[in-house]
Amino acid sequence: MSESLNVGMIGYAFMGAAHSHAWRTAPRFFDLPLAPRMTALAGRDPERVAAAATKLGWDSSETDWRRLIERDDVDLIDICVPGNLHAEIAIAALEAGKHVLCEKPLANSVEEAEQMTAAAEAAKAKGVYAMCGFSYRRTPALSLAKQLVESGALGPIRHVRAQYLQDWLTDENAPLTWRLDKSLSGSGSLGDIGAHIIDAAQWVAGSSITGVSAIMETFVKERPVGGDFVGLGGVGGSDGPKGPVTVDDAALFTARFDDGAVGVFEATRFALGRKNAMRLEINGAKASLAFDFEDMNSLWFYDSADGPNSGFRKIQATEPEHPYTGNWWPVGHGLGYEHAFTHQVVDLVGAIANGEQPTPSFADALRVQRVLAAVEASAGDESRWTTV
Amino acid sequence: MSESLNVGMIGYAFMGAAHSHAWRTAPRFFDLPLAPRMTALAGRDPERVAAAATKLGWDSSETDWRRLIERDDVDLIDICVPGNLHAEIAIAALEAGKHVLCEKPLANSVEEAEQMTAAAEAAKAKGVYAMCGFSYRRTPALSLAKQLVESGALGPIRHVRAQYLQDWLTDENAPLTWRLDKSLSGSGSLGDIGAHIIDAAQWVAGSSITGVSAIMETFVKERPVGGDFVGLGGVGGSDGPKGPVTVDDAALFTARFDDGAVGVFEATRFALGRKNAMRLEINGAKASLAFDFEDMNSLWFYDSADGPNSGFRKIQATEPEHPYTGNWWPVGHGLGYEHAFTHQVVDLVGAIANGEQPTPSFADALRVQRVLAAVEASAGDESRWTTV
Amino acid sequence: MSESLNVGMIGYAFMGAAHSHAWRTAPRFFDLPLAPRMTALAGRDPERVAAAATKLGWDSSETDWRRLIERDDVDLIDICVPGNLHAEIAIAALEAGKHVLCEKPLANSVEEAEQMTAAAEAAKAKGVYAMCGFSYRRTPALSLAKQLVESGALGPIRHVRAQYLQDWLTDENAPLTWRLDKSLSGSGSLGDIGAHIIDAAQWVAGSSITGVSAIMETFVKERPVGGDFVGLGGVGGSDGPKGPVTVDDAALFTARFDDGAVGVFEATRFALGRKNAMRLEINGAKASLAFDFEDMNSLWFYDSADGPNSGFRKIQATEPEHPYTGNWWPVGHGLGYEHAFTHQVVDLVGAIANGEQPTPSFADALRVQRVLAAVEASAGDESRWTTV
Amino acid sequence: MSESLNVGMIGYAFMGAAHSHAWRTAPRFFDLPLAPRMTALAGRDPERVAAAATKLGWDSSETDWRRLIERDDVDLIDICVPGNLHAEIAIAALEAGKHVLCEKPLANSVEEAEQMTAAAEAAKAKGVYAMCGFSYRRTPALSLAKQLVESGALGPIRHVRAQYLQDWLTDENAPLTWRLDKSLSGSGSLGDIGAHIIDAAQWVAGSSITGVSAIMETFVKERPVGGDFVGLGGVGGSDGPKGPVTVDDAALFTARFDDGAVGVFEATRFALGRKNAMRLEINGAKASLAFDFEDMNSLWFYDSADGPNSGFRKIQATEPEHPYTGNWWPVGHGLGYEHAFTHQVVDLVGAIANGEQPTPSFADALRVQRVLAAVEASAGDESRWTTV
Repeated sequence: MSESLNVGMIGYAFMGAAHSHAWRTAPRFFDLPLAPRMTALAGRDPERVAAAATKLGWDSSETDWRRLIERDDVDLIDICVPGNLHAEIAIAALEAGKHVLCEKPLANSVEEAEQMTAAAEAAKAKGVYAMCGFSYRRTPALSLAKQLVESGALGPIRHVRAQYLQDWLTDENAPLTWRLDKSLSGSGSLGDIGAHIIDAAQWVAGSSITGVSAIMETFVKERPVGGDFVGLGGVGGSDGPKGPVTVDDAALFTARFDDGAVGVFEATRFALGRKNAMRLEINGAKASLAFDFEDMNSLWFYDSADGPNSGFRKIQATEPEHPYTGNWWPVGHGLGYEHAFTHQVVDLVGAIANGEQPTPSFADALRVQRVLAAVEASAGDESRWTTV
Repeated sequence: MSESLNVGMIGYAFMGAAHSHAWRTAPRFFDLPLAPRMTALAGRDPERVAAAATKLGWDSSETDWRRLIERDDVDLIDICVPGNLHAEIAIAALEAGKHVLCEKPLANSVEEAEQMTAAAEAAKAKGVYAMCGFSYRRTPALSLAKQLVESGALGPIRHVRAQYLQDWLTDENAPLTWRLDKSLSGSGSLGDIGAHIIDAAQWVAGSSITGVSAIMETFVKERPVGGDFVGLGGVGGSDGPKGPVTVDDAALFTARFDDGAVGVFEATRFALGRKNAMRLEINGAKASLAFDFEDMNSLWFYDSADGPNSGFRKIQATEPEHPYTGNWWPVGHGLGYEHAFTHQVVDLVGAIANGEQPTPSFADALRVQRVLAAVEASAGDESRWTTV
Repeated sequence: MSESLNVGMIGYAFMGAAHSHAWRTAPRFFDLPLAPRMTALAGRDPERVAAAATKLGWDSSETDWRRLIERDDVDLIDICVPGNLHAEIAIAALEAGKHVLCEKPLANSVEEAEQMTAAAEAAKAKGVYAMCGFSYRRTPALSLAKQLVESGALGPIRHVRAQYLQDWLTDENAPLTWRLDKSLSGSGSLGDIGAHIIDAAQWVAGSSITGVSAIMETFVKERPVGGDFVGLGGVGGSDGPKGPVTVDDAALFTARFDDGAVGVFEATRFALGRKNAMRLEINGAKASLAFDFEDMNSLWFYDSADGPNSGFRKIQATEPEHPYTGNWWPVGHGLGYEHAFTHQVVDLVGAIANGEQPTPSFADALRVQRVLAAVEASAGDESRWTTV
Repeated sequence: MSESLNVGMIGYAFMGAAHSHAWRTAPRFFDLPLAPRMTALAGRDPERVAAAATKLGWDSSETDWRRLIERDDVDLIDICVPGNLHAEIAIAALEAGKHVLCEKPLANSVEEAEQMTAAAEAAKAKGVYAMCGFSYRRTPALSLAKQLVESGALGPIRHVRAQYLQDWLTDENAPLTWRLDKSLSGSGSLGDIGAHIIDAAQWVAGSSITGVSAIMETFVKERPVGGDFVGLGGVGGSDGPKGPVTVDDAALFTARFDDGAVGVFEATRFALGRKNAMRLEINGAKASLAFDFEDMNSLWFYDSADGPNSGFRKIQATEPEHPYTGNWWPVGHGLGYEHAFTHQVVDLVGAIANGEQPTPSFADALRVQRVLAAVEASAGDESRWTTV
C-alpha cells in the first residue's frame, strides 16, 4: 500500500469541481506512488462548504484557509480561488511546508508572482514543491505536440499562431461576475484565457516570448450586477442596475520568440460561435502542427517529408503510445476536458514522490505573468514594442 | 440523505472499468434520488478480483457471481462479462429480485434474449427493473439527435446511414481474443459494434427495422493464440500457433424501416484509419442530422428552413440546454467516451427511484437482437431479404 | 501548327455546356497534339441550336444528328443527349468512321451497351476510337487516388465505401423532368449518379464487382408535369397535374469484388443537405484513402507506415506533381467541377493522336452497365445475390 | 448582337493566364451587355508574346505597351505586370481614354496610388473607368459573406480575423524571383497576399481600418539567383550564387476599424502546410462568418438566432440564389480559383456598359495601399500605433 498524500483544497466552484474530480479519479486509472487522500475542503460559508465537501468527496471542511494550512494532516494545498488570493495563500502554504498546486494565472501581478516564485524556490530547497495549474499542457494532443517539437520534427520554428476564442460575453446583458472585476481577477480575457495560450505556445514551441505589441479592448463597458452565477456566463438581466466592467474583453498581440519565430495571439470572449477554441498552430521549416480544443482529441500534423502527398494528418491522440491515453480507453474513444486535470494530479503526485520539481513551476508561470504584464504595458502605450 | 442503492458488478475488464467510473462519478455531478454504493465486485480469480475491487473502488469482492446475487446487501447486478453468460446471470439476478444492468448485446441468441426479456417482464411486475447498456444513447450529441427527431424537426425520414468503423484487426497478427470466438462473443463486428448502430439508428429515428439484406466476411481466418490482451487489439506474434477466427470481421446490410425509410449499415474492424467512427446520418424531408463519435461532442444538423443559406450546422452539444451537459463544464469544454456510462447510471438510478422502466429495456434490446439474427440469416442465405 | 480535330456535338443542356467549355479550354492550358475545332453543334430546334452554337462557341449548327455524322469536316462526335439515344447515335458515328465521346451511363440497357461495345471494337480495328464520359476519373484528387492504389500503397483492399448523395428531389413538388422518365433516362439515381460511383470504385480500386445485393426505392411516386427546367431540379408546382415517376429515387447495394474486398454503395437524390457528395473510401491492409466531391480538391490518405502518429492526411491535390494540376494554378488554388471535362478532352485528344484506346472504353463502360443491371435484377428479386 | 469591347492586355504570366481565361469564358456563361474581344496582348519579347497570344487566344500582339494604348481598336487596358509598372501604364491608358483593369496591389507606393486615383477620377468624368483586380471579392462564398454583413445579419462587428497563409518560400533554396525584389514588387507577403486580406476584410466588414501596429520579418535573407521560374516558387539550387531578399517573408498586425471592431492580420509564405489559406472570420454581436480559400466553395455562418442549437453552418455557396453561381453548374458542383476572374470581367463589362463605376475603384484600392504603408511604417517604428 502506498503512503498517502493528504490534500486540502480551497475553493469549490468551476475549478474546484474539476480538481476534485481529478483527485478522485487519478488513482483509479493510474498507478500512483502516493495515495491522494481528499482530506479537507476550505470555503467561507460553513454550510455551503460542508455541502460541497460531501458532494465532491472531501472528508472534512474548513471555513478559513489559514486553518487548513495549519492542519498537520494536510500535505498539499490546492488553490482554486480567484487570482487576488493566490499569492497570500500560496506563500503561507509553502512556508508552512505544504506542497502547492495553484490555479492559473499564477497571480494578479508580476510582483506577486515574483514573491510566489521566491517562496517556491525556498520551499524547494526543503523538498516542498509548487506547481501552477496550466492544465492544457496535459491534454494528450497538446502533450503530443510538445513531444513532436522536442523530437526536432518541426525544424526551426517560423510561426506561432495562438487563439483562445470564446463567446460567452457577446450578450450585452451577461452579468458582472468576479471575472469582470479587475480587483479580483487581475485582468479579463488576457489573464483568464490568454494566459493559457501564452503558456501553451511557449511550452510546446520550447522557446520564450521576448517582446510584444498589443491592443486590448472592452466592448461592453457596463453590465448588470447581482445575477446568479451559472456556468461561465451567468444569468443577468437588462433592466437592473449596472456596474463597470474593469477588465479587457479582448487582448490581441504580436510577439517575437527567442529562437527567431514570430507569433500572433488573440484572446477574446466575443468570438460569437467559438465556444472554447483554444488553438495553437506552429509552422516549422520541416513540419507544422495545429490544435483546436474544440476537437481536443486530435492533433493535426504536417510533415514535409511526406513529399507531394503531404497533408495535415488528423492524428487521433488516443493511441497507447500517446501521452496519458494508454491508461484510459481503446483508441478513438475520446477523452474530455477534465482529463487534463487528472493527468495534472498524476504528474504532480509523481514528481512529489520522486523529489522532482513538477512543471509548470512557479518560475515557469512567472514567465507567463511577465508576458501578461508586457501585453498590458504595450496596450497602454500606443502598442509600442515592449520587451518581456 | 438519500437512501442507498447497493450495486454488485460482475467483470472488471474494459467495460468493468467504464462502469466503475460511472458509479463513482454520477453522484458527484448529478443529484441522484438514491445513493449508489459500490458494494461488491465479482470475478473468478480471487487475487485479481480483490485487486480490481480496490483499484476500481468496490467495497468487497466475490469469486462466484451466484454468491453476489445471494447477498442481501446487493440491490442491483451490473453485468460486464462476455455475452455467453448474460442470460444465465441476468435471469438469476432478476428472479432473486435484483435490478439488472446488462452490457450489450443483450445475448448471444434471440432465444436467450427472449428468455431474458420474459424474466425482465416478470420482474417488472414486482418493481424490479432491467436495462441494457447501449451506452451511446447517453452521448449528449446523440441524445440531442433523438430530441430533434422527436420534435418533428426532420419530417418524414427517407434515409438512415449508419457505420461503425474500427481498424484494430487490420493487422493479420492481432491475436485471437475472446471477441473472435463465437462461443463466447456470439458474433464479431456484428454484435460488438453493429449492435450499437442498430440500436442507435432505431432509437434516434424512432422507427423499427422490418427487414434486411446482408453480407458478412471474415478477412483473416486464423490468428495467433496466447497473446497477452492489451486494449482491444492485444499483442500477438506471427510465429506462434494459430487458431480459427469464428466470427465476422465485417457485416454490411441494407434495411427498411417501418416508416418507409431505407437504411445502409456497415460494421467492421478493418477500416484502416477509422478508430472509433460510430456514425449515424438521418435524412428527413425537412432536415437532416449527422453524428460521428470521433468528434463526439458535435452534432451536425441541416435545416432546410434556413433556405438558400442552409448548411450543416456543427452544433457543439455542450450547452446547458443540451442533454446531460449542464451538469458538467461550460460550453465547448468537451466530454469524453466514459461520460455516457455516467449518464446511464444517472438515468438508471432515476428510473428505479421513480418506479419507472429504464430504457433501453430488455425488450428494446431484444429488437436489436432480432435484427442481428436477421442479418446473420440473410448473409447465410444469398443475401435474401429477411424480415425481422 | 498541329493538325486539327474537328468536333461535332449533339445536345446542349447541362452536359453540352460542360463539354463545350472543355473543348474551348483544353488547348489554352495544355499542349495538345491535335487542335480541336468546334465545328458544329446539333439539336432539334433550329433557332435554339443556332443560338446555343453561338453562345457556346461552335462554328455551325445542325438540326439532325444524322447530318452531323455525314459531314466530312467532322472527325469526332460528342454525344450529350439522354441515354435512350446513345446506342443509335454512337453506333452510326463509329460506323461512319467518326471517333465518339459518349456521356454516361453508356446506354439504357446491357444489350445496347453490348452493341455499342461491339461497334467500338470494330471501329478500333480501323483506328477509330470510342470513349465514355465518366468524367470524375479526371478530377485530380481521384486520379491521385488511382495512382496511390496502383503504386501498391494500400496493400490488399478490404473495403470499398461509395456514396453519391444529392438532395434535389427532396421537395415533393420538384417537377417531372426527363431524368425521372425511365423511357428516356433508363433509370433514376442508379444510372445517373450510381453509375459514377460504380465506375470510380472499380477504376480506383483496380478490381471488378462480381456480385451485388440491392434495394431500390421511389419515395415520391408522382410529380408535377410541365414545369420549366432550371438546373437539375426544375421548378414545379403543387397544384397542377401530376405524372408518374418511373425511376428510382434511391439505390442501395452491397457488393463483392474479385479481389476479395466488400463494398457498400448508395445513390440517392433525397439526402437532404448533401448537394453533390460523390464519395469514395477504400480501406486497404496498409493504407486507406477517402474522397468527397464536396471538397473536390482534397484527397484524404491514411498510411499505417506513419506509425502511432498516423492520421488521415488532407492532401491538397493541387501540386505540380499531381495529375493535371501542373497545367493550371499554383498549389492550393483549387479547381472546379468542369476541369474534369477539360482533362477528359486532353486525354481523349492525346489518345487519338497516339493511336491508343482512350479510357474508359465502351468495354469499361459496359462493365458498369452490367453492374447497373445486376442491381436492378437483385432489387427486383428480394435482394437476392446477383452475379455480374 | 452586342457591341464589342476591345481589350488589350499587358503581361502573360500567372495573372495573364487567369485574365485571358476570364475574357474568353465570361461571355460563354453570362449574358454580357458588351462583347469582349481579345484584341491584343503586349509583352517585351516578340516571339514569346506572339506565342502567348496564340496560346491564350489574343488576336494580335505588341511589344510595347505604349503602342497598345495608342491603338484605336483597343477600348480597355488590362494590366498584368509587376507593381512597379502599374502607375505609369494605368495613368497613360486612362489619359488616352481607355478603361483600365489593373492587378493588385494598385501600386508600389501610396504616392503612385494617389496619382493613379487622381487619373481615375479625371477619367471617370469622361466616362472612362478604372478598376483594381482584387479578384477574391468575386469568389461566390466571399460575395455571399458581404451580402450577409450588408443585410445586417451580423449586428455590430466585434472581431475581424484575417490570414493569408502560404508556404512556398519555406524551402531556403527557393529562388530569388521578381516577387522577392522590392524594386519590382514593392513588398513581399504584405503587398502580394496581405493586400488581398486587407481588401477583403474592409469590403466584407463594410468598415475601414483606422490604425495598425505591425511587425514584419524576413526569415531567409539570401536566396539562389537565376533559377527557372516554375509556378510561384520556382526552382533554385543550393550551390549557385545568391542574392538578397529585399522584401518581407511575413507581415503581422493588429488593427482597429472605424466601427469599433478590432482585427488581427497575418500574411506569410512560411506557414508550412498551408497552401493558399486566405481566411477571413468576422464575429458580430448577432452572427459570425468564416471563410477559408482552401475550401473556397463554402461559407461558414453562425447565427445566434438558432438558439441552443446554433452552430457554424457549412453553406455550400453554389445555390442559384448565391452570387454568380446560378450561371454555372448545379448546386454542390464547385467552382475553382479562376472563376473569380471571370466574375470580375462580368462585373467590369456590366459597369462600363451601364456607365457606372466598377468596384473596387482605384480609390478603394488606395485605401488598401494606405493600410499597407501604415503597416510598413509601424513595423519600422517599434510597432508603434500608426493611423491610416
